[in-house]
Amino acid sequence: MSRLRFRISMSLDGFVAGPDQSVNEPLGVGGEGLHEWVLPLAAWRTAHGKEGGEVNESSRVVEEEVANIGATIMGRNMFGGHPGGWDAGNPWNGWWGKNPPFHHPVFVLTHHAREPLALEGGTTFTFVTDGIESALEQARRAAGGRDVALSGGAQAAQQYLAAGLVDEMELHLVPTLLGGVERLFEGVGTDLHGLELVRAVAAPGVTHLKFARR
Amino acid sequence: MSRLRFRISMSLDGFVAGPDQSVNEPLGVGGEGLHEWVLPLAAWRTAHGKEGGEVNESSRVVEEEVANIGATIMGRNMFGGHPGGWDAGNPWNGWWGKNPPFHHPVFVLTHHAREPLALEGGTTFTFVTDGIESALEQARRAAGGRDVALSGGAQAAQQYLAAGLVDEMELHLVPTLLGGVERLFEGVGTDLHGLELVRAVAAPGVTHLKFARR
Repeated sequence: MSRLRFRISMSLDGFVAGPDQSVNEPLGVGGEGLHEWVLPLAAWRTAHGKEGGEVNESSRVVEEEVANIGATIMGRNMFGGHPGGWDAGNPWNGWWGKNPPFHHPVFVLTHHAREPLALEGGTTFTFVTDGIESALEQARRAAGGRDVALSGGAQAAQQYLAAGLVDEMELHLVPTLLGGVERLFEGVGTDLHGLELVRAVAAPGVTHLKFARR
Repeated sequence: MSRLRFRISMSLDGFVAGPDQSVNEPLGVGGEGLHEWVLPLAAWRTAHGKEGGEVNESSRVVEEEVANIGATIMGRNMFGGHPGGWDAGNPWNGWWGKNPPFHHPVFVLTHHAREPLALEGGTTFTFVTDGIESALEQARRAAGGRDVALSGGAQAAQQYLAAGLVDEMELHLVPTLLGGVERLFEGVGTDLHGLELVRAVAAPGVTHLKFARR
């Protein structure tokens, strides 16, 4: 069975993006600090078509994270662009350029219908307007037996967590305070739906906490 | 120099006590789950005058935590009792019985003056009404060259953290959701005042994150 695997970087005070998110500052003020641990890694650089990089305790975690993924789900805020409907004359095509690093089907949760967007390297963005269960069903079908990655942001994650649809959760806990704006576990309730801590890894600038059903 | 060492158990969603704290439920609803990892440990049982218990990856952390402590600071909510002034006829003397497990001077932050309370085993509670810096100064003097423990709760910790007075912070991160009520890092801002993650330990039911100034 294709599993839904959620992974996200979170600050010590529980935020997954800084305040004042915008097209120019997609991660919010200070939010880029959530990703400092991953950018120097060879495992990340290779996945983004770059050479070189470091190997440390995080490397195995990142390799594990991208392995056996056949499709990705993300929220509209993570796909980006100005809020509201799509600008037909000058549509937003994501943060990732002509050849995004996914190389598989990506399903974007949105309230605004849009034709699928096929980019280079095998990445196709499909815009899903009929809810999280529909997106999961489509992603599972597209994944062809492999797993589905849930990449965030906070609102998309909250919906899947609260519905008990997440099979695995990898929290990259970054030892910093962001002071806003979106808390990952806001409104999720107190039920982790059987997800238990199964592995913790200390690495430079981050602690990786993996949750799964036993 | 005597250091101020803060330690606390925190849920995955950032809370250090559950909702609806009361005299009958001092940790709030679900809050006792924050301490399940420590109760079976031999290191904890010994410190509380009990025999037996388990040894695991948390044992060294707990031993380290209680070592070289000469005084403790805590907030009024942690000392407990009904909010407001002290009941002179039937004063609240803490949760810990006649022989509390501190065995050293304890300083309680409060808005309501009260005579010191000397209990068995070397524990004296001194009630400090003139603020966190005064309490720290008194505790340092009483600690006789050893360190001062800051035991919580959330409000006391927030004041010391925001003022940059904490020299070491040990977070026991418990992989559970509490959904309320007091967030440890609420209103603390984004400045950790030089505290950096220096050690992470994975243990049964908890991940220990130690912060210090390098």
